[in-house]
Amino acid sequence: MSLIVVGTVAFDAIETPFGKTDKIVGGAATYIALSASYFVPKSQLISVIGDDFDQNMLSFMKTRGIEQEGLQVKQGEKSFFWAGKYHNDLNSRDTLITDLNVLADFKPVVPASYQNCEYLMLGNLDPAVQLSVLDQLTSRPKLVVLDTMNFWMEIALDSLKAVLKRIDVLTINDEEARLLSGEYSLRKAAKKILEMGPRYLIIKKGEHGALLFDKENAFFAPALPLEDVLDPTGAGDTFAGGFIGFIAKTGDTSFENMKRAIVAGSVMASFCVEKFGTENMLDLSDDQLTNRLDQFMSLSTVDVKF
Amino acid sequence: MSLIVVGTVAFDAIETPFGKTDKIVGGAATYIALSASYFVPKSQLISVIGDDFDQNMLSFMKTRGIEQEGLQVKQGEKSFFWAGKYHNDLNSRDTLITDLNVLADFKPVVPASYQNCEYLMLGNLDPAVQLSVLDQLTSRPKLVVLDTMNFWMEIALDSLKAVLKRIDVLTINDEEARLLSGEYSLRKAAKKILEMGPRYLIIKKGEHGALLFDKENAFFAPALPLEDVLDPTGAGDTFAGGFIGFIAKTGDTSFENMKRAIVAGSVMASFCVEKFGTENMLDLSDDQLTNRLDQFMSLSTVDVKF
Repeated sequence: MSLIVVGTVAFDAIETPFGKTDKIVGGAATYIALSASYFVPKSQLISVIGDDFDQNMLSFMKTRGIEQEGLQVKQGEKSFFWAGKYHNDLNSRDTLITDLNVLADFKPVVPASYQNCEYLMLGNLDPAVQLSVLDQLTSRPKLVVLDTMNFWMEIALDSLKAVLKRIDVLTINDEEARLLSGEYSLRKAAKKILEMGPRYLIIKKGEHGALLFDKENAFFAPALPLEDVLDPTGAGDTFAGGFIGFIAKTGDTSFENMKRAIVAGSVMASFCVEKFGTENMLDLSDDQLTNRLDQFMSLSTVDVKF
Repeated sequence: MSLIVVGTVAFDAIETPFGKTDKIVGGAATYIALSASYFVPKSQLISVIGDDFDQNMLSFMKTRGIEQEGLQVKQGEKSFFWAGKYHNDLNSRDTLITDLNVLADFKPVVPASYQNCEYLMLGNLDPAVQLSVLDQLTSRPKLVVLDTMNFWMEIALDSLKAVLKRIDVLTINDEEARLLSGEYSLRKAAKKILEMGPRYLIIKKGEHGALLFDKENAFFAPALPLEDVLDPTGAGDTFAGGFIGFIAKTGDTSFENMKRAIVAGSVMASFCVEKFGTENMLDLSDDQLTNRLDQFMSLSTVDVKF
C-alpha cells in the first residue's frame, strides 16, 4: 500500500458558538493525513506552505508517518490562511478571510519517490491543480478519491468535469450534489454524477451522515449523535482520510468495502468535531477507535422482518 | 392486540414544486390508521368531522379495519381544513389556510367498546385533548405514543408537559426536540426530554431519517433515498402509524423491537411521500412492503472491524 494525500496545509482562525481560536493549524491535507494515519503506517504529502508554518506540527506529522518530500516550503511567503465563523446551528458558516498566499500559484510536484502510488486522495483544490497531479503520475493508481466544493462548480466547471472523468470516488455534500447534477432528488443526482466519470459517489451530509452510491447500490452511514460538537472544521476531510486510510489498509475497492470505509470515515469525523481544529486527531488510542466503532455499529444495526 | 388512533380526519389542499391538489382527504389520524392497517387487522378511530366529509373514504377505511364508533360527525358543520405550500427543498412549508371548523371545540369521547386498549396512538392535537383521552381510559394501555409539534410547545407547554408524564413514546422532529429541551445537541436534548416522562424518544428528521433514544441507547434508521418525492404531507403520521402498527402486531415494547418498529415506520413513510396525499397508502401489496424493507436493510447493513 502507498497513499498520496494532496491538499492544503494551512492556518485557520475559527469562531463557533462554543469558542474562538487564533491562528491554528488546519488545511484539508492536514486533516486527511492525520486521519488516515490511524489506518496506514505511512502516507506521502503534496502541498505548499510559507516559511511561517508551525515546525512542531510538521515534526509531529512525521512521527505519524506523513512524509513531506512533496511539501513545498516557499521562503519569504506566507501559508494559506482561512478565517470563518459558524452560525448557531453549525451547519453553515461565513468566510471572514481567505488569504491564498502560497496557494495562489501552487504548482504541485510529484517527487520520484511518490511514483507507483496505489491510493491517491485529491483534497479540495482548484481542479486544474488536482489534474496536474494525475498528469504527473507515471502509473494510474488503484483508487483515486477526489473532494471538491461548490466554488469550483461555479467558476471552474469544465476543468472539474475533466478531472471527474479520471477518478474513482467523488466526495461532495448534498447541496453540491444538487448543484452539480441539477437534480434535487439525491438518487437522481447520484445517477447523473456517476455518468460524469466516478464509479462511486459519496454524499456527505454532516450531522445527518453520509450516503454511498454506485450504479446499482446505495448505502447510508449515520453520523453518531454526539454530546458536544465544538467545531465542524475539517470534519469532511477527516472523513475522507479515514475512508481512504481504511481502503488503503484493506486493499479492497469493492462496494462492500467502500461501505466499511465510510463507517471508518464517520468514526474519525466524530472525533474531529469534538474539539477545535486538529486537537482531537493527534493522539487517539486503539481503544477509543474500537469503542466508537462499537457505538456506530449499535447505532445502526437492526434485523427486521415483516 | 387493540389499537386506538386519535387525531385529525380532515381536508388538505397541498402545493409542492411538483404539483397542486384541490381539497383532498388528509389528517393525522387518517395517515396513522391507514399506515397501521398494513400491520394490524383492526384499529379504532377517535376524531371529529363535519357532514361535508368524503363518505367513500370512510367506507374504504372500514374495509381496512378502521372502526369509526369514536368518530364524531357534526351535522351542519365543516371538517378541519388545512392548506399549505411547500418550499423548493420540501423541508419547509408555509401554512396558507387553517380552518379549524369542527376541531375548534373537539371533545373526544372514548366509546365503551374501545376500553381495555393495549396500544394508544395520540396524534398531534391540543395536549389538553390528548390528556382527555388518557383520562377516559379505564385501564392504562401497554404503550402510549404521542406526537406533537412546536405550536403546542409555544402556546400550551404546561399541558404538554402534563401529558408527557403519562406517555411511553414521544415523536417529534429535530427542531422541536431542540425547542422543547433548549439543547442543540440531540443527544443532550434526548436526555432532557426523557426526564420529562417518556421512556423512548423518536426524533424524526424527514429525508435524514429518524433517531430513537432511551436512557442508555441510541438507534438511527435512515430514510430511503427516493427517485421522486412529490409531497411530504403525512409522512410523519404515516411513520407513526407504521411504528405503532408494528409494535401492536408484535406485542413487544423492548428497545430492540422499537428499533424494528422505526424501520417499519420508515418503510411506510417512504411510500407516502411518493404520491400526493394518501394516494399511495390505499393499496400497497405485501410484495411492495417486503421489497422496500429489503432496500432499507441493504441501505443500512454493514459489518466493520478495525
